[in-house]
Amino acid sequence: MMTPNFDKMGGLIPAIAQDYKTGEVLMLAFMNRRAWEATLKTGKATYWSRTRRELWVKGQTSGHQQIVKEIRIDCDDDTVLLKIEQLGGATCHTGHRSCFHKKIEDGSVTILGAPVFDPKEIYGK
Amino acid sequence: MMTPNFDKMGGLIPAIAQDYKTGEVLMLAFMNRRAWEATLKTGKATYWSRTRRELWVKGQTSGHQQIVKEIRIDCDDDTVLLKIEQLGGATCHTGHRSCFHKKIEDGSVTILGAPVFDPKEIYGK
Repeated sequence: MMTPNFDKMGGLIPAIAQDYKTGEVLMLAFMNRRAWEATLKTGKATYWSRTRRELWVKGQTSGHQQIVKEIRIDCDDDTVLLKIEQLGGATCHTGHRSCFHKKIEDGSVTILGAPVFDPKEIYGK
Repeated sequence: MMTPNFDKMGGLIPAIAQDYKTGEVLMLAFMNRRAWEATLKTGKATYWSRTRRELWVKGQTSGHQQIVKEIRIDCDDDTVLLKIEQLGGATCHTGHRSCFHKKIEDGSVTILGAPVFDPKEIYGK
C-alpha cells in the first residue's frame, strides 16, 4: 500500500485538484493521513482544513463535491494531484469555476470570468 | 502592487507549474518572497528549495528552465499557479515530462509514460 510522505510538512501534503476533462487547475488544499485515506475510501476529495482544524469533505456545505476520477502522486511522494469531476460546476467559494481566477499582470490583479453561482444563495442561508 | 500572503506557512506559498499549452500539471514547489519577486522580474520560474535552503532557478543545472507565460493567484492569495513553457520538454529530475507521472490505483503505483531525457546525461557528469 503506497503512502505519501507526510513528514516533510508536519503531517500535511499539498493536494491539487484539476478538472479531469478540461485540465483546468481548480484549487489547492492540504491533506493529512486521515484525509488521504478518506479520499481513497470514499472517492470524494477530502482535505484537512488548517483554519478549522478538521476533516473537510469538499462540498459538504455547498453540495459541490469533487468526485475523484484519478489520483497521481509526484516523484518524491509529497504532493498529490487529483483529477476530479466538480459537481455544481464551480470549486471556489466565490462562485468562480476555479480558485485561480485572479491573473497577475504588471503587479496588479485582473479577475477572469464570471461566477457560476451566487455564493449568497449557497452559503448565505 | 499585489503581494501573496506568505504568513500562513512561515514565509512560503505553494506554487504549481502547469504547461501553458497542454494544461498538464508539471510540478509543485514553494516560493518565498524573494523567489516570487525574482519570478516576476526575470520571467523564469524561481522557487525556494526547502532542502538546500536557497533560491532555486528551476533548470539552472539542467538547462530546462521554465518560461513564465501567465501568473494566477488563488482566491485567498496564498497559492500561485504558473503557466509555463518547459524548456527541454521535461520538468522532472527523473526525465519524465511531469513530476506527477505516478498513478495510484487500488493503493499501488503505476509509472505513466517514458522519460524524455536520461537523467544521467543531464545531471550525472
